Amino acid sequence: MATNERVFNFSAGPSTLPVEVLEKAAAEMLNYEGTGESVMEMSHRSAEFQQIIDDAEKNLRELMNIPDDYYVLFLQGGGTLQFSMVPINLMTGSGKADYLVTGNWAKKAYEEATKFGDVKVVASSEDDLYSYIPKIIPEDIRPDVDYVYVCYNNTIYGTHCNEIPNVGDHMLVADMSSCILSEEIDVTKFGLIYAGAQKNVAPAGVTIVIVRKDLVGHAPANTPIYLDYATHAKKGSMYNTPPCYPIYVAGEVFKYLLRNGGVKATHERDVEKAKILYDYLDKSEMFKPSVAKEDRSLMNITFVTGDADLDKKFIAGAREAGMINLAGHRSVGGMRASIYNAMPKEGVETLVAYMEKFENENK
Amino acid sequence: MATNERVFNFSAGPSTLPVEVLEKAAAEMLNYEGTGESVMEMSHRSAEFQQIIDDAEKNLRELMNIPDDYYVLFLQGGGTLQFSMVPINLMTGSGKADYLVTGNWAKKAYEEATKFGDVKVVASSEDDLYSYIPKIIPEDIRPDVDYVYVCYNNTIYGTHCNEIPNVGDHMLVADMSSCILSEEIDVTKFGLIYAGAQKNVAPAGVTIVIVRKDLVGHAPANTPIYLDYATHAKKGSMYNTPPCYPIYVAGEVFKYLLRNGGVKATHERDVEKAKILYDYLDKSEMFKPSVAKEDRSLMNITFVTGDADLDKKFIAGAREAGMINLAGHRSVGGMRASIYNAMPKEGVETLVAYMEKFENENK
Repeated sequence: MATNERVFNFSAGPSTLPVEVLEKAAAEMLNYEGTGESVMEMSHRSAEFQQIIDDAEKNLRELMNIPDDYYVLFLQGGGTLQFSMVPINLMTGSGKADYLVTGNWAKKAYEEATKFGDVKVVASSEDDLYSYIPKIIPEDIRPDVDYVYVCYNNTIYGTHCNEIPNVGDHMLVADMSSCILSEEIDVTKFGLIYAGAQKNVAPAGVTIVIVRKDLVGHAPANTPIYLDYATHAKKGSMYNTPPCYPIYVAGEVFKYLLRNGGVKATHERDVEKAKILYDYLDKSEMFKPSVAKEDRSLMNITFVTGDADLDKKFIAGAREAGMINLAGHRSVGGMRASIYNAMPKEGVETLVAYMEKFENENK
Repeated sequence: MATNERVFNFSAGPSTLPVEVLEKAAAEMLNYEGTGESVMEMSHRSAEFQQIIDDAEKNLRELMNIPDDYYVLFLQGGGTLQFSMVPINLMTGSGKADYLVTGNWAKKAYEEATKFGDVKVVASSEDDLYSYIPKIIPEDIRPDVDYVYVCYNNTIYGTHCNEIPNVGDHMLVADMSSCILSEEIDVTKFGLIYAGAQKNVAPAGVTIVIVRKDLVGHAPANTPIYLDYATHAKKGSMYNTPPCYPIYVAGEVFKYLLRNGGVKATHERDVEKAKILYDYLDKSEMFKPSVAKEDRSLMNITFVTGDADLDKKFIAGAREAGMINLAGHRSVGGMRASIYNAMPKEGVETLVAYMEKFENENK
């Protein structure tokens, strides 16, 4: 590979970004729109940065059709801080919450929540290494829980909730880190949605929280101030200095998505891209998809050969051919192709062509 | 100002960065060192990013002469999250801490700490709008405190601890957000030093924590996992996805400082730059420095004309002349020139030339 060429980056996150967004960021690195400064150097109290964060929020609201009775917050600390903030802020009625454990991140969220209240696993697929989305039976949910928690797309395993989990009248909280903006979602079906940006949106360092306004303001008095959603909601995500540059890049990705047909058109492209790979997996003699067909993710596609040495050879060859980060998560092995919104169709086609060649050569 | 020109940016933070660092970031935005990907897109588990964060830590250790018995952590959440993390992690012996209140940020840190233990103000300059550094009398410190807290440089007011506060045998914790890397500091005199990067180091979104190893691991069991220093210390700041791009830029700034003589030479340049402005302020009939001479900051230089309309005219004229963010903090008014490490001497000279002209024209 020549050093001036871009690779196809199948990383699960941080992950590939639209080339035109990167080109714009590079072009205005020393001088943003004639201000004479980089966005990295810009006071967060300046009119210019206020415009950047206002536009980012406005465009995300448009993309996701977020109603006015929801706050949109841009926070730090990643999903890990949300594992704490969700129960601290929302488990304040009965002090109970039920968790759907669909993978390692959901399990970590559950374990963290146990510090702050009475938390129960309502369904789990841990018995089969999270290779499917367990069904929730609404009657299993404790009647007085403050919320039911779900991880909507499971990056490590490649599973996805292909319908909104049936939690009856209970309030749903969702981690959508690895599927946000890849499908149309009815936000009103959720009390809170959060997403670390480093998969489908932006570089690492900003987390999007979409939370119904009436749910904010109930954190206990001794809550660390950064961990109270009210702190940020009252100040438009600028109680303290926000992660300005990641927010700026997120804003550019939002504009890019709007220019390209919004979430509906993005989803259609994502379906088309995933189909290329799943169709091949379904007919391959060598590569086998890892998860239940009805729970397949459009974003993270996992597969194995069943032979760890062959997997290694495949991954090394892919790297040579300019396709990186195809190794599965260390906890599951095999391969994983993360094909987020910014992965071009050409990347998936190139991968499948390589898979075909590899299969022929290694029969 | 032509749109291709850079301004002199006197912002208190986020603030100006070295041009050669920005140029490098722009040049490798689409392809970092032949990897075919942007640092923004790079898996934090890749060998390339591990090298970036390892180099950043190694170079910061070299710049600040940080001993091996201290951790260096790169965290999210800014100073605000440290306001909570410091007491949660360190106020775990007697459960007491004494705070030196030298400004608004120190006061916020104090107020936050009251949530987690028995906290007392040991000295304060609030009586005179924080225009000086109050002296600590070691005997006033409660004998069994877990630490004494100080904000070393007060960005809003332009004051600085020009010697290490005398706290006797007590352990000192310092917020050095706005003076880190501008002066040689004996790290061993402190239990913990932290600094939001967005002033002297990098874009907003990463906070540096330097903490003595024996102080880590004592947080209560119900501490939110992100807020326990041990979480990050055990995993080399990669328990969860770190703010990769801000860390990368911080690392480039560290390299830049090492190429330019390290902290000693940087400090000499900072002294020289500040002297140009203070010398002018000391002789000016119109512009008066705002703080006690012995407590002057090299980083944030505050001054007033005593006439709010004249201040406004000065700030607007400066902006026209390509010098931005010279307004004082809203809580104190007047003017503030933040001249961090990356502000070239030419910027200070240009400012003083403008001040002289303004003074002559507005006598």
